[in-house]
Amino acid sequence: MNTQQPRVIIVGAGFGGLFAARTLANKPVDVLLIDRNNFHTFTPLLYQVATCALDPSEIAYPVRTIFRKNKNVRALLGNVTDIDYTNKSLTVQVGEQTLQEPYDYLVLASGSIPTYFGQDVFKENALELRTLSDAVNLRNHILSLFEEATWVADEAVREAMTTIVVVGGGPTGLETAGAIYELYNHVLNREYLHRELQTRVILVEMQPYLLAPYPDKLRQAALEQLESLGVEVRLGSPVQEVAKDHITLADGTRIDTHTLVWAAGVKGSPLAEMLELPLQRGGRLPILPTTEVPGRAGVYAVGDMTYLEDASGQPYPMLIPVAQQQGELAAENILAEIGGGEKRPFRYHDRGSMATIGRRRAVAWIYNKIPMRGYFAWLAWLALHLVTLLGFRNRLNVFINWMWNYFTYDRSVRIILEQGTQKKELSASG
Amino acid sequence: MNTQQPRVIIVGAGFGGLFAARTLANKPVDVLLIDRNNFHTFTPLLYQVATCALDPSEIAYPVRTIFRKNKNVRALLGNVTDIDYTNKSLTVQVGEQTLQEPYDYLVLASGSIPTYFGQDVFKENALELRTLSDAVNLRNHILSLFEEATWVADEAVREAMTTIVVVGGGPTGLETAGAIYELYNHVLNREYLHRELQTRVILVEMQPYLLAPYPDKLRQAALEQLESLGVEVRLGSPVQEVAKDHITLADGTRIDTHTLVWAAGVKGSPLAEMLELPLQRGGRLPILPTTEVPGRAGVYAVGDMTYLEDASGQPYPMLIPVAQQQGELAAENILAEIGGGEKRPFRYHDRGSMATIGRRRAVAWIYNKIPMRGYFAWLAWLALHLVTLLGFRNRLNVFINWMWNYFTYDRSVRIILEQGTQKKELSASG
Repeated sequence: MNTQQPRVIIVGAGFGGLFAARTLANKPVDVLLIDRNNFHTFTPLLYQVATCALDPSEIAYPVRTIFRKNKNVRALLGNVTDIDYTNKSLTVQVGEQTLQEPYDYLVLASGSIPTYFGQDVFKENALELRTLSDAVNLRNHILSLFEEATWVADEAVREAMTTIVVVGGGPTGLETAGAIYELYNHVLNREYLHRELQTRVILVEMQPYLLAPYPDKLRQAALEQLESLGVEVRLGSPVQEVAKDHITLADGTRIDTHTLVWAAGVKGSPLAEMLELPLQRGGRLPILPTTEVPGRAGVYAVGDMTYLEDASGQPYPMLIPVAQQQGELAAENILAEIGGGEKRPFRYHDRGSMATIGRRRAVAWIYNKIPMRGYFAWLAWLALHLVTLLGFRNRLNVFINWMWNYFTYDRSVRIILEQGTQKKELSASG
Repeated sequence: MNTQQPRVIIVGAGFGGLFAARTLANKPVDVLLIDRNNFHTFTPLLYQVATCALDPSEIAYPVRTIFRKNKNVRALLGNVTDIDYTNKSLTVQVGEQTLQEPYDYLVLASGSIPTYFGQDVFKENALELRTLSDAVNLRNHILSLFEEATWVADEAVREAMTTIVVVGGGPTGLETAGAIYELYNHVLNREYLHRELQTRVILVEMQPYLLAPYPDKLRQAALEQLESLGVEVRLGSPVQEVAKDHITLADGTRIDTHTLVWAAGVKGSPLAEMLELPLQRGGRLPILPTTEVPGRAGVYAVGDMTYLEDASGQPYPMLIPVAQQQGELAAENILAEIGGGEKRPFRYHDRGSMATIGRRRAVAWIYNKIPMRGYFAWLAWLALHLVTLLGFRNRLNVFINWMWNYFTYDRSVRIILEQGTQKKELSASG
C-alpha cells in the first residue's frame, strides 16, 4: 500500500460500493473495499437462483476478479464492527483476527436488510431473499418440502407443504411468486407422477394494489398477469401471525403453509447506527446532496442505507440505479475534495423500472413515462439484465441456462445441497 | 404404483444404483430408487468443484430428471435406517416421517466412505472429498483461509494457512493436489497483489510409490509430472498426527497446515452391516458372482460396498466401471429371476484407468495394456469425462467453463457461500 496517497475505505460491495470503487480505480488513492462476502451479488436475479433457474455463481462475481487489474483497489473479506469517526478508523473482524483500518475518506454502502415493521417474531418462520445464501436456502427449503410432501398421506398436511405464501407486492414479490409458480407447475409436477400434488402460490400485499410506485394501469396489468399465470393474489390485508405451519391475515384468513417468503420491505443497514446520528424513518442515514454525511468529516454514504430528498421533497427510492449513481458521485466528490475541485450534488437519472412475472410476462415503466406490459416488457427486462450482468462467462452461462429453461423447462440446477456442519465450522473458522 | 408387478428397491443413486435403475426402466417392475440426495453426483470431478473450476450443479443431476420419462422408476429422498431382510422391508427416514417400504428385490448400492484406518481422531481436523457438500466445504475452507491469510502479520502463521496437505497417492489425491496447486499459483496469487503469499501443496503417501495399481513407469511418470507442476511429494511415511494447525508424519516430519485433505482410502458403506453378515476387510459385503448376497433372499449388492474376487483370487477394485457393470448385471439377473431366465455371473470389462495432474498432464493405462502420459493422456481424460457426464446442458456448461478456465485461468465460480444456520434448519426440517 502506497502511504503517500489518501486512503479510501468502501464498506459494502453491492451496487453502490462497487460503482464507487470502479470510479476510484486507477486514481491517485488507495482503495480498500470491505464486504462480508468475497463476491458481488447481482441481486435482481436472486429469485432465479431460489427457483432453480440459475446457479448461485452465475449471479455472483468475485470482488478480487473485478478489480484484478486495478492495483490501487484491494478487497477485504470481513465484518465492520465499529466506526471511530473521530480518529477516522474502522474495526474489522477478519476470521479470528481484529484489524484496525485507518481511513482518510469513508464510503458507507452496506445497503438494506428486511424489515418486519416491528413484528420481528415473524422472522422465526419466514424465509428472506436478500442474499445469495437466502436464495440457496429458499431453494433447498422448497425442494425438500416437495420431496417430503410426495410421501405424506394426510392430504391437508401435504397441501400445506406445497403452498407458498409470498408477502410483498413489490417487484421482488411479483418476480418470486411468478417464478415459484412456474417451478411448481411446469417443472416439479412433471416429475412427481405417482401422486398429483396440489400446489398453490399466494401473493399477499397489505395495500389494495401491487407495485405502489407504478401508475394505475400498470398496477392493474401486473395483477392481471399474475392471476392469468395462476398465482392467487390477496390485497388489502396485512399479515397478522406467522407460525411454522400456517399464517393468518388481519382479515382473519388462515393459510396453511410451511413456506413464507418475506419480501414486504427493507430498512437501512444497521451500520448506519455506528455514526451515532439521528436516523430517518426506515433506519436510513440522512446525507447531503453531495452524499456526504453531515458532521462526520470525510464520511460519505450511498444507496439503500441513506436518506436524501429530491426537489419535490420525496426521498429517493431504495433502488439499484440510485445506489449506482450515488456511488459514482461519492467517488467523484472525494476526488474533487482531494484535487481541490468542486463537489457536485446528486441528480438522479431515472430510466424507469420494470418487474417480470414468470417466463413471458412483465410490466415496465420506461423513464416513468412509457408503460410496457406483457411479452415485450419481458424481452426488454431480459436484455437489460443480460447486459448489466457482470462478466462475459456469467453472461454466457446465464444466457444458455435461460434459453435452455425457456425451451425445455428443464431445471438441472435443482439440487438440494446441504452443508456439513463439522466442515462448515472448519471453513468458518478459516 | 402398480401392485401387480414385483417391486425392486435400489438404495443409492451412485453409478451402481443409477445403472441398475436404468436397466430396469420401462421393464415390468416397480422401481424405487432411494438416496440421501435428490441428485446423482459425478464424483470423478468433485475435485474440480473443490478447486473452483466447476459449479456444484455441473456435476450433479437430479434423479427425478434422469427418470422423468420412466414411469416405473420413482425417486425417494431419504435415509435407510433398517433392513428387515426376513420380511423384506426397509425402514426409511423421510424428513420427519418414518416409512416402511416392502420389496421383492433389493439392490444395495450405497458405495463407500472414507476410512482413517483406525485413526478416526484424524477426521476431526480433516477435510474429505466424497460428496458434493464435501467439495463445496473444501472450496469455502481454502478460499476463506486464503482471504484471512492476506491479513496475517506473522509469517509462520500465514504460511501454515496457505499450505495444503493432501493425503493419498491415488487418482483422487493426485487430481486434487494438482488442481489446488494451480488454483493457488495461477489464479489466487494473481489477485492478492499487495502481499506475496508463499503457497505450498504437499502430497503425502505412505507407500514408496504413487498410483499403486499402475505399472512402475506410469507411477514414475505421475511422480515426475506432479513435481514438475510444483507439488511436493512425500512418499513412504504415513500420517501419525493431525492437529488443527499442523500434521506429523511417522518419520517425525512436522508440517504446519490448516488444511488436510484426506484421500487415503475408503471402506464399504455402513449399510452393509444391516444385513448382519460377516464382512470382508474394508467393511465390504461378500457377494456371489451373480451379485446376489448369499443367504439373503432377493437381496443384491453392487459396487464399492461389495467384495467379489476375480478368477485370480483378487477382489475387484472399488472403481466406477465395476459399480456400473455390476449394477447392470444385478438388474438383468433380477429380470432373469422374474422371467425364469438364467442368471449370469459378473465379467469385468476393464477399459483401464487414468488420473489427471493439473491442466495438461495425466497418466492413463488403456485396457491395462497401453500406457499414456502427458498432454495426450489429459486430452483422452477430458474427452472421456465430457462424454460420460450426464445431461447435455451440463456437458455444455462444463465444456464452456473448462475452455474458459483453460485459456483465461479465470475462476468466476470462486464464491464463498456459507449457509445461514436458521434458514438451514428450516430447510433441513422441510
